[in-house]
Amino acid sequence: MGIVTCDIATSVNGYVTGTDQRLDSPFGDGIDEKTLHGWMFDEPEEHAEEIAGILDAGAFIMGRNMFSPGRGEWDPDWHGWWGAEPPYRAPVFVLTHHPREPLSLGQTTFHFVTGGAKAALSLARAAANERNVAIAGGAATINQYLKLDAIDELRLHVTPMIVDAGERLMDAVGWHRVSLVSARSTPPVVHLTYRFDRQGVAPTN
Amino acid sequence: MGIVTCDIATSVNGYVTGTDQRLDSPFGDGIDEKTLHGWMFDEPEEHAEEIAGILDAGAFIMGRNMFSPGRGEWDPDWHGWWGAEPPYRAPVFVLTHHPREPLSLGQTTFHFVTGGAKAALSLARAAANERNVAIAGGAATINQYLKLDAIDELRLHVTPMIVDAGERLMDAVGWHRVSLVSARSTPPVVHLTYRFDRQGVAPTN
Repeated sequence: MGIVTCDIATSVNGYVTGTDQRLDSPFGDGIDEKTLHGWMFDEPEEHAEEIAGILDAGAFIMGRNMFSPGRGEWDPDWHGWWGAEPPYRAPVFVLTHHPREPLSLGQTTFHFVTGGAKAALSLARAAANERNVAIAGGAATINQYLKLDAIDELRLHVTPMIVDAGERLMDAVGWHRVSLVSARSTPPVVHLTYRFDRQGVAPTN
Repeated sequence: MGIVTCDIATSVNGYVTGTDQRLDSPFGDGIDEKTLHGWMFDEPEEHAEEIAGILDAGAFIMGRNMFSPGRGEWDPDWHGWWGAEPPYRAPVFVLTHHPREPLSLGQTTFHFVTGGAKAALSLARAAANERNVAIAGGAATINQYLKLDAIDELRLHVTPMIVDAGERLMDAVGWHRVSLVSARSTPPVVHLTYRFDRQGVAPTN
Protein backbone atom coordinates (compact mmCIF):
# COMPACT_ATOMS: atom_id res chain seq x y z
CA MET A 1 0.00 0.00 0.00
CA GLY A 2 1.14 3.52 -0.67
CA ILE A 3 2.14 6.04 1.97
CA VAL A 4 1.08 9.64 2.56
CA THR A 5 3.72 12.07 1.37
CA CYS A 6 4.01 15.82 1.52
CA ASP A 7 6.37 17.93 -0.58
CA ILE A 8 6.52 21.60 0.22
CA ALA A 9 8.78 24.52 -0.72
CA THR A 10 9.47 26.63 2.34
CA SER A 11 11.63 29.45 3.64
CA VAL A 12 14.30 28.66 6.25
CA ASN A 13 11.75 29.57 8.91
CA GLY A 14 8.91 27.46 7.59
CA TYR A 15 6.85 29.98 5.66
CA VAL A 16 5.23 28.80 2.45
CA THR A 17 3.48 32.08 1.57
CA GLY A 18 3.52 35.72 2.59
CA THR A 19 0.43 37.53 3.80
CA ASP A 20 -2.71 38.35 1.79
CA GLN A 21 -2.71 35.74 -0.98
CA ARG A 22 -4.84 36.94 -3.87
CA LEU A 23 -5.39 36.64 -7.62
CA ASP A 24 -2.55 38.97 -8.59
CA SER A 25 -0.25 37.63 -5.84
CA PRO A 26 -0.94 33.91 -5.39
CA PHE A 27 1.83 33.45 -2.82
CA GLY A 28 1.03 36.68 -0.98
CA ASP A 29 3.02 39.80 -0.28
CA GLY A 30 6.76 39.43 -0.51
CA ILE A 31 6.77 36.07 -2.32
CA ASP A 32 6.50 35.66 -6.05
CA GLU A 33 6.32 32.40 -7.97
CA LYS A 34 10.10 32.05 -8.01
CA THR A 35 10.93 33.14 -4.47
CA LEU A 36 10.56 29.66 -3.00
CA HIS A 37 10.27 27.67 -6.23
CA GLY A 38 13.07 29.19 -8.31
CA TRP A 39 15.12 25.99 -8.17
CA MET A 40 12.32 24.17 -10.04
CA PHE A 41 12.17 26.68 -12.85
CA ASP A 42 15.81 27.70 -13.10
CA GLU A 43 17.49 24.33 -12.59
CA PRO A 44 14.96 21.60 -13.42
CA GLU A 45 17.61 19.08 -14.46
CA GLU A 46 19.68 19.55 -11.32
CA HIS A 47 16.54 18.85 -9.24
CA ALA A 48 14.86 16.33 -11.56
CA GLU A 49 14.54 13.64 -8.91
CA GLU A 50 12.89 15.91 -6.35
CA ILE A 51 10.56 17.42 -8.94
CA ALA A 52 9.49 13.96 -10.11
CA GLY A 53 8.84 12.96 -6.49
CA ILE A 54 6.39 15.82 -6.00
CA LEU A 55 4.09 14.47 -8.71
CA ASP A 56 4.61 10.76 -8.05
CA ALA A 57 1.28 9.97 -6.41
CA GLY A 58 -1.97 8.23 -7.27
CA ALA A 59 -4.06 10.99 -5.69
CA PHE A 60 -3.54 14.47 -4.27
CA ILE A 61 -5.14 16.55 -1.55
CA MET A 62 -5.03 20.33 -1.42
CA GLY A 63 -6.73 23.13 0.48
CA ARG A 64 -9.28 25.45 -1.05
CA ASN A 65 -6.77 28.31 -0.82
CA MET A 66 -4.29 26.45 -2.95
CA PHE A 67 -6.88 25.77 -5.64
CA SER A 68 -8.38 29.23 -5.76
CA PRO A 69 -7.75 32.83 -4.71
CA GLY A 70 -11.46 33.15 -3.96
CA ARG A 71 -13.10 32.51 -0.60
CA GLY A 72 -16.74 31.74 0.21
CA GLU A 73 -19.08 30.52 -2.54
CA TRP A 74 -17.43 29.18 -5.70
CA ASP A 75 -16.97 31.18 -8.85
CA PRO A 76 -17.75 28.38 -11.36
CA ASP A 77 -15.54 30.07 -13.94
CA TRP A 78 -12.47 29.51 -11.75
CA HIS A 79 -10.70 26.38 -13.02
CA GLY A 80 -7.53 26.53 -10.93
CA TRP A 81 -4.13 28.05 -11.63
CA TRP A 82 -2.84 25.34 -13.93
CA GLY A 83 -4.57 25.79 -17.29
CA ALA A 84 -6.07 23.06 -19.46
CA GLU A 85 -3.63 20.30 -18.43
CA PRO A 86 -2.80 20.52 -14.71
CA PRO A 87 0.38 18.65 -13.77
CA TYR A 88 -1.29 16.22 -11.34
CA ARG A 89 -2.80 13.81 -13.92
CA ALA A 90 -4.65 12.02 -11.12
CA PRO A 91 -7.62 12.72 -8.85
CA VAL A 92 -7.14 15.82 -6.69
CA PHE A 93 -9.31 16.24 -3.60
CA VAL A 94 -9.87 19.87 -2.65
CA LEU A 95 -10.89 20.61 0.96
CA THR A 96 -13.69 23.16 1.00
CA HIS A 97 -16.77 24.19 2.93
CA HIS A 98 -18.65 24.83 -0.31
CA PRO A 99 -19.97 21.97 -2.48
CA ARG A 100 -19.05 21.95 -6.16
CA GLU A 101 -19.34 19.39 -8.95
CA PRO A 102 -16.10 17.62 -9.97
CA LEU A 103 -14.03 19.46 -12.54
CA SER A 104 -12.03 17.55 -15.17
CA LEU A 105 -9.16 19.27 -16.94
CA GLY A 106 -6.98 17.13 -19.19
CA GLN A 107 -5.96 14.04 -17.20
CA THR A 108 -6.73 15.65 -13.83
CA THR A 109 -10.10 15.62 -12.04
CA PHE A 110 -10.65 17.92 -9.08
CA HIS A 111 -13.13 16.61 -6.50
CA PHE A 112 -14.47 19.08 -3.95
CA VAL A 113 -14.78 17.51 -0.49
CA THR A 114 -16.89 19.11 2.21
CA GLY A 115 -16.59 16.29 4.76
CA GLY A 116 -13.26 17.37 6.24
CA ALA A 117 -9.63 16.22 6.17
CA LYS A 118 -10.22 12.61 7.26
CA ALA A 119 -12.94 12.07 4.66
CA ALA A 120 -10.69 13.52 1.95
CA LEU A 121 -7.88 11.19 2.99
CA SER A 122 -10.15 8.15 2.78
CA LEU A 123 -11.31 9.16 -0.67
CA ALA A 124 -7.75 9.84 -1.80
CA ARG A 125 -6.47 6.51 -0.46
CA ALA A 126 -9.20 4.67 -2.34
CA ALA A 127 -8.54 6.63 -5.52
CA ALA A 128 -4.74 6.20 -5.29
CA ASN A 129 -5.16 2.47 -5.72
CA GLU A 130 -2.00 1.31 -3.85
CA ARG A 131 0.02 4.32 -4.96
CA ASN A 132 1.00 7.19 -2.63
CA VAL A 133 -1.32 9.99 -1.59
CA ALA A 134 0.36 13.39 -1.73
CA ILE A 135 -0.69 16.31 0.46
CA ALA A 136 0.00 19.18 -1.93
CA GLY A 137 -0.56 22.16 0.38
CA GLY A 138 -0.91 24.83 1.50
CA ALA A 139 0.34 25.30 5.02
CA ALA A 140 -3.04 25.11 6.73
CA THR A 141 -3.88 21.83 4.98
CA ILE A 142 -0.48 20.31 5.72
CA ASN A 143 -0.74 21.41 9.35
CA GLN A 144 -4.16 19.76 9.57
CA TYR A 145 -2.75 16.42 8.36
CA LEU A 146 0.31 16.73 10.60
CA LYS A 147 -1.98 17.23 13.57
CA LEU A 148 -3.92 14.11 12.53
CA ASP A 149 -0.54 12.31 12.41
CA ALA A 150 -1.48 11.21 8.89
CA ILE A 151 1.70 12.08 7.01
CA ASP A 152 4.33 9.36 6.60
CA GLU A 153 7.01 11.27 4.72
CA LEU A 154 7.65 15.00 4.78
CA ARG A 155 9.88 16.38 2.04
CA LEU A 156 10.95 19.93 2.74
CA HIS A 157 12.53 22.00 0.00
CA VAL A 158 14.15 24.82 1.93
CA THR A 159 14.99 28.07 0.12
CA PRO A 160 17.63 30.39 1.62
CA MET A 161 15.24 33.12 2.71
CA ILE A 162 13.71 34.22 5.99
CA VAL A 163 10.11 35.40 5.72
CA ASP A 164 8.58 37.89 8.12
CA ALA A 165 4.93 36.82 8.07
CA GLY A 166 2.50 34.63 6.15
CA GLU A 167 1.34 31.03 6.25
CA ARG A 168 3.68 28.97 8.40
CA LEU A 169 4.29 25.26 8.32
CA MET A 170 4.32 22.98 11.36
CA ASP A 171 2.53 25.50 13.55
CA ALA A 172 0.82 23.92 16.58
CA VAL A 173 0.76 20.45 15.05
CA GLY A 174 1.63 18.39 18.14
CA TRP A 175 4.84 16.54 18.97
CA HIS A 176 6.40 14.24 16.39
CA ARG A 177 9.60 12.28 16.26
CA VAL A 178 10.92 11.92 12.75
CA SER A 179 13.98 10.35 11.14
CA LEU A 180 16.10 11.96 8.48
CA VAL A 181 15.89 9.80 5.35
CA SER A 182 17.93 12.00 3.03
CA ALA A 183 19.47 15.44 2.78
CA ARG A 184 20.79 17.04 -0.36
CA SER A 185 21.72 20.65 -0.95
CA THR A 186 22.42 22.83 -3.96
CA PRO A 187 23.00 26.58 -3.71
CA PRO A 188 19.32 27.52 -4.13
CA VAL A 189 17.69 24.80 -2.02
CA VAL A 190 18.16 22.19 0.70
CA HIS A 191 16.07 19.06 0.21
CA LEU A 192 15.29 17.33 3.53
CA THR A 193 13.20 14.16 3.67
CA TYR A 194 11.86 13.00 7.03
CA ARG A 195 9.91 9.86 7.97
CA PHE A 196 7.56 9.94 10.93
CA ASP A 197 8.36 7.57 13.81
CA ARG A 198 4.95 6.50 15.04
CA GLN A 199 6.20 5.00 18.29
CA GLY A 200 7.59 8.25 19.63
CA VAL A 201 5.03 11.00 19.47
CA ALA A 202 5.05 11.87 23.17
CA PRO A 203 7.28 14.58 24.59
CA THR A 204 10.45 13.43 26.34
CA ASN A 205 9.65 14.73 29.79
CA MET B 1 37.23 42.34 12.16
CA GLY B 2 35.13 39.46 13.40
CA ILE B 3 31.57 38.73 12.38
CA VAL B 4 28.44 38.08 14.42
CA THR B 5 27.58 34.40 14.50
CA CYS B 6 24.71 32.46 15.96
CA ASP B 7 24.69 28.72 16.62
CA ILE B 8 21.43 27.22 17.76
CA ALA B 9 20.03 23.72 18.17
CA THR B 10 16.47 23.61 16.92
CA SER B 11 13.63 21.26 16.02
CA VAL B 12 12.65 20.86 12.36
CA ASN B 13 10.04 23.56 12.91
CA GLY B 14 12.32 26.07 14.59
CA TYR B 15 11.60 25.51 18.24
CA VAL B 16 14.51 25.78 20.67
CA THR B 17 12.55 25.11 23.87
CA GLY B 18 9.16 23.82 24.94
CA THR B 19 6.80 25.81 27.14
CA ASP B 20 7.33 26.81 30.79
CA GLN B 21 11.13 26.78 31.17
CA ARG B 22 12.04 26.44 34.83
CA LEU B 23 14.70 25.24 37.26
CA ASP B 24 13.78 21.56 37.01
CA SER B 25 13.10 21.78 33.26
CA PRO B 26 15.54 24.28 31.73
CA PHE B 27 14.34 23.64 28.17
CA GLY B 28 10.66 23.57 29.13
CA ASP B 29 7.99 20.92 28.84
CA GLY B 30 8.66 18.19 26.32
CA ILE B 31 12.35 18.96 25.81
CA ASP B 32 15.12 17.60 27.97
CA GLU B 33 18.81 18.41 27.70
CA LYS B 34 19.33 15.75 25.05
CA THR B 35 16.21 16.24 22.93
CA LEU B 36 17.81 18.87 20.71
CA HIS B 37 21.43 18.52 21.86
CA GLY B 38 21.84 14.74 21.92
CA TRP B 39 24.26 14.82 18.99
CA MET B 40 26.70 16.88 21.09
CA PHE B 41 26.67 14.49 24.00
CA ASP B 42 26.30 11.18 22.20
CA GLU B 43 28.58 11.78 19.21
CA PRO B 44 31.00 14.56 20.10
CA GLU B 45 33.73 13.31 17.78
CA GLU B 46 31.43 13.02 14.78
CA HIS B 47 30.39 16.65 15.34
CA ALA B 48 33.69 18.04 16.61
CA GLU B 49 33.92 20.81 14.04
CA GLU B 50 30.41 22.14 14.70
CA ILE B 51 30.87 21.94 18.47
CA ALA B 52 34.16 23.84 18.24
CA GLY B 53 32.47 26.50 16.12
CA ILE B 54 29.86 27.17 18.78
CA LEU B 55 32.52 28.27 21.26
CA ASP B 56 34.87 29.97 18.79
CA ALA B 57 34.16 33.60 19.68
CA GLY B 58 35.82 36.46 21.54
CA ALA B 59 32.60 37.43 23.29
CA PHE B 60 29.10 36.03 23.73
CA ILE B 61 25.64 37.50 24.18
CA MET B 62 22.74 35.67 25.81
CA GLY B 63 19.30 36.46 27.12
CA ARG B 64 18.42 36.54 30.79
CA ASN B 65 16.30 33.42 30.32
CA MET B 66 19.28 31.47 29.04
CA PHE B 67 21.38 32.46 32.02
CA SER B 68 18.80 31.87 34.70
CA PRO B 69 15.46 30.18 35.35
CA GLY B 70 14.50 33.16 37.54
CA ARG B 71 12.63 36.23 36.35
CA GLY B 72 12.45 39.69 37.94
CA GLU B 73 15.06 40.72 40.54
CA TRP B 74 18.24 38.66 40.66
CA ASP B 75 18.89 35.90 43.13
CA PRO B 76 22.58 36.64 43.81
CA ASP B 77 23.19 32.99 44.63
CA TRP B 78 22.33 31.99 41.04
CA HIS B 79 25.60 31.61 39.16
CA GLY B 80 24.31 30.12 35.90
CA TRP B 81 23.86 26.55 34.77
CA TRP B 82 27.49 25.82 33.98
CA GLY B 83 29.29 25.33 37.31
CA ALA B 84 32.68 26.72 38.30
CA GLU B 85 34.17 26.72 34.78
CA PRO B 86 31.60 27.72 32.16
CA PRO B 87 32.55 26.70 28.63
CA TYR B 88 32.64 30.23 27.19
CA ARG B 89 36.07 31.30 28.56
CA ALA B 90 35.42 34.84 27.32
CA PRO B 91 33.20 37.77 28.31
CA VAL B 92 29.49 36.93 28.19
CA PHE B 93 26.99 39.79 28.01
CA VAL B 94 23.61 38.92 29.52
CA LEU B 95 20.61 41.01 28.43
CA THR B 96 18.51 41.90 31.46
CA HIS B 97 16.25 44.59 32.87
CA HIS B 98 17.82 44.17 36.30
CA PRO B 99 21.31 45.51 37.11
CA ARG B 100 23.82 43.14 38.63
CA GLU B 101 27.57 43.25 39.28
CA PRO B 102 29.76 41.24 36.90
CA LEU B 103 30.24 37.60 37.87
CA SER B 104 33.53 35.80 37.19
CA LEU B 105 33.60 32.02 37.11
CA GLY B 106 36.83 30.39 35.97
CA GLN B 107 37.87 32.03 32.69
CA THR B 108 34.38 33.40 32.00
CA THR B 109 33.01 36.75 33.18
CA PHE B 110 29.29 37.44 32.89
CA HIS B 111 28.39 41.10 32.43
CA PHE B 112 24.78 42.11 32.95
CA VAL B 113 23.64 44.70 30.41
CA THR B 114 20.50 46.77 30.99
CA GLY B 115 20.93 49.08 27.98
CA GLY B 116 19.36 46.78 25.41
CA ALA B 117 20.47 44.60 22.50
CA LYS B 118 22.39 47.26 20.58
CA ALA B 119 24.36 48.32 23.65
CA ALA B 120 25.22 44.72 24.42
CA LEU B 121 26.43 44.20 20.86
CA SER B 122 28.71 47.26 21.06
CA LEU B 123 30.18 46.04 24.33
CA ALA B 124 30.63 42.53 22.93
CA ARG B 125 32.31 43.79 19.75
CA ALA B 126 34.76 45.83 21.79
CA ALA B 127 35.46 42.92 24.13
CA ALA B 128 35.85 40.42 21.28
CA ASN B 129 38.90 42.30 20.05
CA GLU B 130 38.71 41.37 16.33
CA ARG B 131 37.33 37.91 17.04
CA ASN B 132 33.71 36.90 16.37
CA VAL B 133 30.80 37.78 18.60
CA ALA B 134 28.45 34.83 19.15
CA ILE B 135 24.76 35.23 19.93
CA ALA B 136 24.27 32.24 22.22
CA GLY B 137 20.48 32.27 22.66
CA GLY B 138 17.72 31.79 23.45
CA ALA B 139 15.10 32.28 20.77
CA ALA B 140 13.89 35.70 21.94
CA THR B 141 17.44 37.07 21.99
CA ILE B 142 18.29 35.61 18.59
CA ASN B 143 15.04 36.97 17.16
CA GLN B 144 15.92 40.40 18.54
CA TYR B 145 19.29 40.40 16.75
CA LEU B 146 17.76 39.02 13.54
CA LYS B 147 15.27 41.86 13.58
CA LEU B 148 18.17 44.30 14.01
CA ASP B 149 19.79 42.61 10.99
CA ALA B 150 22.89 42.19 13.15
CA ILE B 151 23.69 38.52 12.54
CA ASP B 152 26.16 37.67 9.76
CA GLU B 153 26.16 33.90 9.98
CA LEU B 154 23.37 31.66 11.26
CA ARG B 155 24.32 28.07 12.02
CA LEU B 156 21.26 25.91 12.55
CA HIS B 157 21.65 22.46 14.08
CA VAL B 158 18.36 20.81 13.18
CA THR B 159 17.20 17.80 15.19
CA PRO B 160 14.64 15.41 13.64
CA MET B 161 11.74 16.39 15.86
CA ILE B 162 8.64 18.52 15.47
CA VAL B 163 7.73 20.51 18.58
CA ASP B 164 4.18 21.57 19.36
CA ALA B 165 4.79 24.78 21.30
CA GLY B 166 7.52 26.74 23.04
CA GLU B 167 10.07 29.37 22.06
CA ARG B 168 10.33 29.63 18.29
CA LEU B 169 13.19 30.91 16.21
CA MET B 170 12.87 33.40 13.33
CA ASP B 171 9.42 34.53 14.43
CA ALA B 172 8.46 37.98 13.06
CA VAL B 173 12.07 38.97 12.36
CA GLY B 174 11.59 40.74 9.03
CA TRP B 175 12.63 39.63 5.55
CA HIS B 176 16.14 38.37 4.94
CA ARG B 177 17.89 36.87 1.97
CA VAL B 178 20.58 34.41 2.98
CA SER B 179 22.99 32.13 1.17
CA LEU B 180 23.70 28.55 2.07
CA VAL B 181 27.38 28.27 3.04
CA SER B 182 27.41 24.64 4.06
CA ALA B 183 25.11 21.73 4.78
CA ARG B 184 26.10 18.51 6.49
CA SER B 185 23.86 15.82 7.89
CA THR B 186 24.28 12.86 10.19
CA PRO B 187 21.35 10.75 11.41
CA PRO B 188 20.72 12.83 14.54
CA VAL B 189 21.24 16.33 13.13
CA VAL B 190 21.39 18.50 10.01
CA HIS B 191 23.93 21.33 10.22
CA LEU B 192 22.95 24.27 7.99
CA THR B 193 25.09 27.42 7.82
CA TYR B 194 23.63 30.53 6.22
CA ARG B 195 25.23 33.92 5.50
CA PHE B 196 23.06 37.02 5.35
CA ASP B 197 22.95 38.90 2.04
CA ARG B 198 22.71 42.54 3.10
CA GLN B 199 21.73 43.82 -0.34
CA GLY B 200 18.54 41.82 -0.51
CA VAL B 201 16.46 42.39 2.58
CA ALA B 202 13.33 43.68 0.81
CA PRO B 203 10.48 41.40 -0.25
CA THR B 204 10.41 40.40 -3.89
CA ASN B 205 7.07 41.96 -4.79
